[in-house]
Order: sequence, then structure tokens, then C-alpha cells
Amino acid sequence: MSSPTDPATSAAPVIVLVRPQLGENIGKAARAMLNFGLTEMRLVAPRDGWPNPSAGPAAAGADIVLEQAKVYETTAEAVADCANVYATTVRKRGDTKPVVTPEAAAGEIRTAPGRSALLFGPERSGLDIADVALARAILTVPINPEFGSLNLAQAVILCAYEWSKTQAMQQPPLTEQLPAAPQAELEGLIAHLEGMLEPKRYFFPEGRAEATRRTLRNVLTKPGWNALEIRTLRGILTHLDRPDRND
Amino acid sequence: MSSPTDPATSAAPVIVLVRPQLGENIGKAARAMLNFGLTEMRLVAPRDGWPNPSAGPAAAGADIVLEQAKVYETTAEAVADCANVYATTVRKRGDTKPVVTPEAAAGEIRTAPGRSALLFGPERSGLDIADVALARAILTVPINPEFGSLNLAQAVILCAYEWSKTQAMQQPPLTEQLPAAPQAELEGLIAHLEGMLEPKRYFFPEGRAEATRRTLRNVLTKPGWNALEIRTLRGILTHLDRPDRND
Repeated sequence: MSSPTDPATSAAPVIVLVRPQLGENIGKAARAMLNFGLTEMRLVAPRDGWPNPSAGPAAAGADIVLEQAKVYETTAEAVADCANVYATTVRKRGDTKPVVTPEAAAGEIRTAPGRSALLFGPERSGLDIADVALARAILTVPINPEFGSLNLAQAVILCAYEWSKTQAMQQPPLTEQLPAAPQAELEGLIAHLEGMLEPKRYFFPEGRAEATRRTLRNVLTKPGWNALEIRTLRGILTHLDRPDRND
Repeated sequence: MSSPTDPATSAAPVIVLVRPQLGENIGKAARAMLNFGLTEMRLVAPRDGWPNPSAGPAAAGADIVLEQAKVYETTAEAVADCANVYATTVRKRGDTKPVVTPEAAAGEIRTAPGRSALLFGPERSGLDIADVALARAILTVPINPEFGSLNLAQAVILCAYEWSKTQAMQQPPLTEQLPAAPQAELEGLIAHLEGMLEPKRYFFPEGRAEATRRTLRNVLTKPGWNALEIRTLRGILTHLDRPDRND
């Protein structure tokens, strides 16, 4: 349904289910996706393995989505080729990333160059902090503050629905900016810098290391640098690692 | 939650389930409603009577909607007090009524005087022709023409969601993002990094130095880092300048 050379559909976001628990919910999510024209599902470490016999019946005919679903070990691998990653989660105090509605996200996805991905967490717990750290923005459905009880397929369907609404008014992307680099290149930059900071005892004391790494990741994820910019930054790091020259 | 004298909520539409079959689906519809602030459900001749023990568990806590649900013999009685009745159904050839999307209906409901009602038909067959005849307009969810498979609760949630977007509940998500740091702090970061790169001969050959500085500035300006982030990055640079420690 989508191909890299087809501009009309290349903007369709990937739906990433992170550690989904019930096969039935994976099937329902597939149905919700296909109802609004989304076909690319990725599964990160589904609890009960894959394929899951409970998924098919719940998909109510959306078998093509399940058949084409790809399975990954980690969330980072699942979004390695994606430039615009959204973490769907409830807002928390102290969010440092932009928080957008499904409608706003759909508008961004329509015009942003590069692939987009929407992350959805496990049924009970939602995305964990490390998954959210991979994302450029948080996607939150504004819900009744006295009764917020969206299940996985409902969250998926609202996002797919908003995306489909943007397709009715299909327009060429408005910008010639380069897309944000694929996540894998960002990971390369983060690993490069961490490798240089390690021997300088930047991640010390150990008890703070995890939070410090997360802060570093957030600061470097925010810009949405493109591949050229990432390459420039890698070059800067390489130069910083050289001895001073006084010639 | 709503009262007739409260103009802010008097526009909330009534959700009318016509001859619903499964109690579970009634419960799911209640949950979908309350998620987006709708509380008034009416049931026309529910197949298995009312109350239905399967409804409560599926409502996932939206019991107040079920407890207040009223039961009617006919669709006409259920909407007798409503001024603006929408029949949710797929479009058919020869529709003689206006056909609107959930979004357009929500806009009309928000401003129309009088009560509004949304009719949803039985799970398998949908509304029959006599039910549709009661409505002023047909409400159709624009769906994948090659795979249209919305269930009852999904149709309800999309309509409730669109309605909520017209309400105060829907506001741009507050963000706690800090503003971008003042330009002087960004300049401090750039100068710090340039100062470190200078002796590494990063700005060499001289003929390229100006362009290289501009590239560096562009890459660091793009993120719009806030003051905390700038401080983090200054700390990183300071650490990178230290000798390795092997203790």
C-alpha cells in the first residue's frame, strides 16, 4: 500500500506496539489501523511471542496488517529508520518534550520529511521512561480528566483517524528541509559522545549515571538534526578527541 | 455532570443505541462516552433487556453512564425531546439528507440550539430505514473504502472525541517546556566549543573557516535549547577537556 517512491503514502506513520501483552489487543489495533488506511505495524518484544493465534480473530479481516508486522527486540531497533518518533502517553509533570494532540501530530506527520512512528506502550503500564526518551515529542489524547480510560486499540484508532483526516487534503510537503536523520544515526552520535565522556567520569557517581544518560539523550534528541548535521557533529567529536596541534 | 441550566454542557449530545445486541458493547460504548465527557446514554429496545450484567465489566468504571441510561421502546420516543438528530450510518446511494463527518457534526452540535442526539444502530445490521428517517442528517465516518469495519464502541468514541474537541476540555496541551535560552547563552556555548576546536585545527584550511563556523552555528542554533540544556552542554564540554581518569 505504501512504497518509498510514492509521495502520496510515504507520510503514513508506522504504528509501534511496545511489549504488547494480549494478542487480542494486537488484532484490534490492526483493525483500527486498517480502518483508517494504516498498514505498517511493528511489534517490540510481544509478551506472548509472535505470531499470536489470538490476534487474527480480533483483527476482523485486517490480516494483511498482522501478516506484514515486523518484530523487534528493542524499541530503538523498531524506530531505527524513523525520523519523527512520537511517544503516546499521558502527560506527566515535568515533561521536557513538546506535548501534542493527535490532531497536531497528524498535521506534523503529513508535512514532515522522513518516516514517522507512533509508539504505544503495554496495556497496563504504558511506555516506560526509556521508550519515551527515544521520542521527539509526546502525543497525548486530551481526555476526560475525571475518567481517563483509553485502551490500546482506542488510542490507536484516534491517532489513525486523525492521520486519515489529513490525507483527504493531500498536499505536497511544504518544506524542502532534509528529514531528521534516522534514529540509528542519532544513536551513533549519542554512543560516540558517551564513549568520550565515559573516561572523563562524566557519568559519575554511578547512582546518577542513568539519569545523566537520559538527560544527554534528551538534549541530543530534541534538535531533530538531519543526516548532514549528525555527520558534522560526529566530525566535531572526532576533532575534539585529537591532541592539540601547535604548528 | 451536565445540567439543563449550564450552557457550557447543555450542548452535550445524547448517545442513543438502537436495539443494541451485546451488553458488552453497551458497556464499551459507555466507557468511550465518558472518556470524552459524554454521560447521557439512551437505549432503544436492547435485545437482552436492561440492566444487562455484561455491560458493567466492559464499562471499565464508567458505571455512572450505565446507571443513568434510560430505556425506550422506540427510537422516536428516545429522541422525542431532541432538536438535532444524527443517524450514524454508512452512506448509501440516494441519500436525501445531508451527510456530515463527525467533525462537522460536532461543530453543529456545539452551536445548534436544542438538544442533539446521535443514533447508533445494532451491531450487525446498523440503523434501519425508519430510524434514519427520524434524523435530520446522516453522520458518516470517512473510512478506508477497502476495509470499513468500525464496531459500535469505535464509532461512538470517534464521535465523542470530536465533540470533546469542541469543548473546553480540548485545549492546547500545556507544556512545561522551558523557553529557548537567551541568545547570549547560546553564544557562550558556541564560543566554548569553538575555543576547544581551534587548537584541534577544526577550522582549517583558513579559506573554509568562515563557512565551517557558520555550519557549526547553524547546527547549534537549530535545537532551541533552553538554559538548562545549554548548561548541560557546557558541562559536557568542560568534561571533554579534562584528562582521562583511570582511578
